Amino acid sequence: MSQWFRNGEPLSQVSIDDRAFQYGDGLFETVAIRDGRPRLWNYHLERLQLGCEKLRLPKPADKALRASLDLAIRASDADRSHCTAKIILSAGISARGYARSAATSGAEFVGVFSSQALAAEHYREGVETMLCDTRLAMFSATAGCKTLNRLEQVLARLEIAPGEAFEGFTLDADGRVICGTMSNVFIVTANTIATPSLDRCGVAGVMRRHAIETLRRTGDTVVVRDISESELMHSDEVFICNSQFGILPVQRCGDKEWHAHTRTRSVMRALAQSGIVECAQ
Amino acid sequence: MSQWFRNGEPLSQVSIDDRAFQYGDGLFETVAIRDGRPRLWNYHLERLQLGCEKLRLPKPADKALRASLDLAIRASDADRSHCTAKIILSAGISARGYARSAATSGAEFVGVFSSQALAAEHYREGVETMLCDTRLAMFSATAGCKTLNRLEQVLARLEIAPGEAFEGFTLDADGRVICGTMSNVFIVTANTIATPSLDRCGVAGVMRRHAIETLRRTGDTVVVRDISESELMHSDEVFICNSQFGILPVQRCGDKEWHAHTRTRSVMRALAQSGIVECAQ
Repeated sequence: MSQWFRNGEPLSQVSIDDRAFQYGDGLFETVAIRDGRPRLWNYHLERLQLGCEKLRLPKPADKALRASLDLAIRASDADRSHCTAKIILSAGISARGYARSAATSGAEFVGVFSSQALAAEHYREGVETMLCDTRLAMFSATAGCKTLNRLEQVLARLEIAPGEAFEGFTLDADGRVICGTMSNVFIVTANTIATPSLDRCGVAGVMRRHAIETLRRTGDTVVVRDISESELMHSDEVFICNSQFGILPVQRCGDKEWHAHTRTRSVMRALAQSGIVECAQ
Repeated sequence: MSQWFRNGEPLSQVSIDDRAFQYGDGLFETVAIRDGRPRLWNYHLERLQLGCEKLRLPKPADKALRASLDLAIRASDADRSHCTAKIILSAGISARGYARSAATSGAEFVGVFSSQALAAEHYREGVETMLCDTRLAMFSATAGCKTLNRLEQVLARLEIAPGEAFEGFTLDADGRVICGTMSNVFIVTANTIATPSLDRCGVAGVMRRHAIETLRRTGDTVVVRDISESELMHSDEVFICNSQFGILPVQRCGDKEWHAHTRTRSVMRALAQSGIVECAQ
């Protein structure tokens, strides 16, 4: 069930002239609401800030955005203790054509969605994944940003038959592993944790950032670098993360299986201690 | 002024859950309406067909789409003898997440816009252009298609200050010339006409196709190949095309000026004879 709001007022429709509809001209954030509050809120704000700079959009004031979000959460029927909010920041309405009108001002929309924690089994046994054929275009002007241009993720997701896998990994055109359709990926090799560089394409998730910072704070080495498909498949452990589920071990990718998740467990414990309670399973 | 229709019925709003709004999950065509009829209609249909295959969208039946378009044109206030129609084919409404619901069916929207022919001066003297800094990502899964993911064109367009230039050219990340923000580009060198390959990125315009086919039919050689920035700047003539204005000579790109448009004039005459009446100036 979804409910959408603008400045706390419910709405179900948007102008067909909205540039998000016409060109995907905007950004979004998917925020985990836990105990009534947005988790990793500052990281969401900072990514939005970066996205606004890249897209040359005016960034809404942090306080106003938070007020909008809080109003939406309170107005929604979702369980405030555990739900999902999606903030869409559109470039707003303008006349036809790629040029934004001088008068165009951005528009914020907040959706609130019921969501349930994943089954404990996912955290204990890990999830099944696959490699997608859809390749990500390289040297994207909006690499790292969560823009409303998400066709690559849609196409990759379409490759996953219902029940076939929990997540699919996408490579870039040169065969580097970049991310999952809805998650970022980490590999463990020779006791070192690495995650793909997202300079050329991909979305830099807030949970990826939180995991990197948490691990580094506790003395772990996390390397951000290029990772080949072969490295992924020959790694000792693989785990994925996103803002909603936290961290999940990967038990399979295509034919390759991983049975031990020793290092992943310690990462999950560190994340759980940092407040990502789902990881305490 | 814009007016939008769905199945001939006016509408100004769309569902906020429409996947075009959420992810840019869809395609569009911008069609020149001349004397009440869509120009190069078969080429628009064929590009839409290709796009639907790439995006795994059900393609609306040609006849139904044409009926929808005709209804919209008749219902609109625009001058039927000369206006612009924009057809948006969205993946439709679904729940949150990149996966399309099995039940999702596409949705067509038709916008009709008043438009005027460009001043004769543009055709006689040519237009001013510039090189944009925004680079197009390479090896896009949807290269050539006119998808609703158009942030690169939006960002390139934002670089053009009002009055600074009629059009901006975008290069790919390796420095090849690809296209204008709203047009395709041709260069004339040593009496040979060439236009960039669009295998890695860019939009394959219907007027580009029409120009290539018309010229080849009249015995001209048109080569589709990679073109560097330097080749563009050192070419003898440059012209651009799109579905609305037909063909326009380029008189300037940044500091480089072109004064003679001899070959371009003959291309324009050929296009005018093929029914692109704007070119007869």
